[in-house]
Amino acid sequence: MSAQKQNRQIHLVSRPQGSVQESNFRLVEAAVPAAPEGGVLVRNHYLSLDPYMRGRMNETKSYAAPQPLNSVMVGGTVGEVVESRSSELKVGDFVAGMGGWQLYAAGPAVEWRKVDPRLPLSVYLGAVGMPGVTAWVGLLDIGEPKPGETVVVSSAAGAVGSVVGQLAKIRGCRAVGVAGGAEKCRYVVEELGFDACVDYKAPDVYGRLEAATPNGIDVYFENVGGELFDMVLRRLNAFARIPLCGWISGYDTGQQYAVRNVPALLISRAKLQGFIVSEHQSRWAPALAELGSEVAKGRIKYRESIAEGLENAPKAFIGMLHGRNFGKQLVKLV
Amino acid sequence: MSAQKQNRQIHLVSRPQGSVQESNFRLVEAAVPAAPEGGVLVRNHYLSLDPYMRGRMNETKSYAAPQPLNSVMVGGTVGEVVESRSSELKVGDFVAGMGGWQLYAAGPAVEWRKVDPRLPLSVYLGAVGMPGVTAWVGLLDIGEPKPGETVVVSSAAGAVGSVVGQLAKIRGCRAVGVAGGAEKCRYVVEELGFDACVDYKAPDVYGRLEAATPNGIDVYFENVGGELFDMVLRRLNAFARIPLCGWISGYDTGQQYAVRNVPALLISRAKLQGFIVSEHQSRWAPALAELGSEVAKGRIKYRESIAEGLENAPKAFIGMLHGRNFGKQLVKLV
Repeated sequence: MSAQKQNRQIHLVSRPQGSVQESNFRLVEAAVPAAPEGGVLVRNHYLSLDPYMRGRMNETKSYAAPQPLNSVMVGGTVGEVVESRSSELKVGDFVAGMGGWQLYAAGPAVEWRKVDPRLPLSVYLGAVGMPGVTAWVGLLDIGEPKPGETVVVSSAAGAVGSVVGQLAKIRGCRAVGVAGGAEKCRYVVEELGFDACVDYKAPDVYGRLEAATPNGIDVYFENVGGELFDMVLRRLNAFARIPLCGWISGYDTGQQYAVRNVPALLISRAKLQGFIVSEHQSRWAPALAELGSEVAKGRIKYRESIAEGLENAPKAFIGMLHGRNFGKQLVKLV
Repeated sequence: MSAQKQNRQIHLVSRPQGSVQESNFRLVEAAVPAAPEGGVLVRNHYLSLDPYMRGRMNETKSYAAPQPLNSVMVGGTVGEVVESRSSELKVGDFVAGMGGWQLYAAGPAVEWRKVDPRLPLSVYLGAVGMPGVTAWVGLLDIGEPKPGETVVVSSAAGAVGSVVGQLAKIRGCRAVGVAGGAEKCRYVVEELGFDACVDYKAPDVYGRLEAATPNGIDVYFENVGGELFDMVLRRLNAFARIPLCGWISGYDTGQQYAVRNVPALLISRAKLQGFIVSEHQSRWAPALAELGSEVAKGRIKYRESIAEGLENAPKAFIGMLHGRNFGKQLVKLV
């Protein structure tokens, strides 16, 4: 084992001009760092690939600083403590944190969250991790769904969207997903238990959205943006709530869709609120408690797309940006 | 007096195709109604002309039912009780209510609000009436301004916008108006005491908005919509709030401006909320108390455009839709 203790990392080496290319990344060999005083060295088992990373690759102002060039890509990981100089975490503990696109990560113990190894480790990057908490905070704190209301979520087969719809069902709502393709829609309805799913790749999206929301829309959890947002605005009920979580539609091209129906927000006296889950730290504990319990009971289901090996992370990331993943996109690192 | 007791009304007789025309209205003679049991007959002194009326003239779905054809136009008035069958109001009391585009209005006493005749009556249709309460509810309850923050308001010389900026100053904020023309901008800064005003009719609106908001924008009170909204989105600070009160830009033409910068709401984690002041009844009493007191002290100033005579209401209304009024648009009926 010790002979093999070589770190490998993926660096961002250039910013995308238009679509992300594999050539924007480089695989780099590096020394394995030591655990710092009060910290740990973690062997990452899984890396999470998430849409927010696309925003970081640009140099333009966003809510987070741009990913620096020629350094390891930012990313959530789950792994095992292999060296510890902290009284909080010991060797053999399993932890989740922002370990980056690399095999080994060293850092202060407070930056890692201990996880329960009785659930599959990868779930802590999905339904019981950042995506799940994003769904929970956005739907419950901003969306405030009431029993009987209609909740619509875009990217419904994805890591966040799938939890949004299942939480909506648990709260007694009608859950309607929007997803790309018949297979994803079948999964959303038949496996996840949504009431309906609109395939945005099929014709007459608005007509099918209308049919799926006979009582209008009370909560719209937005992951995608673009023309679908405009269609949803036409179906809003009075006092609708829109947690605005993602606008992936323009991430890659820089071409922003222009929204025609903004006045519908006035007509419906709707509330729209952008949010980033990392700014809602006080909500993580109750969110993770409920999500862990519901996953353990099988009331929240999830699906994963797992790429094998760090070297395949860039390709898997690009595929996810194009919607080619099905469920939470991960990279297996062990 | 009794010989002259003839009612006159303005009816809507056709819906506008594009711009409102005077021919959409008709002046009608009618009998003066009697005060109903438990109600009063009011001689209207002033009629308020407001942007929301334009929306009512269309047949399309909005938050309120369309104005019916061939009946008296809806509108707020202030006047004097001339006949009473109510123990709540007596002859000679001054009252504000939805008296409509007419000389006399009869209705239940509960639909009228008694006003203090020590202030000029017309103020109860402006700074101490619906526009003032709109400003108060939108700015304070939705905008939640904190001292030192920057508040921007469109239509800043108007009945709502002028109160928004003055309340923002009272709350210790930087108040920046947007208005059409140098004269209105001078009024907004020199008479109303805003810190700056951007003339949207002059060149390089964005550059001047940027100069007027060196620390970005924390609260944007939206009365107008359109391209200005897009510009403001580019200047939002983190956790900005946008009370969405009006979107007059598309009222008249039906041509909606398409908004490009919606993702800025996510990047800023902003909150946008549409509202209608009539749905915030519990806030009217505290709002009117503060507004009345500030107007009496001269800390909230206002300006009025007064058309003379009911027959000139349609023309004054059309002028207001085109921004030709300066301050609150009223029609004097006595």
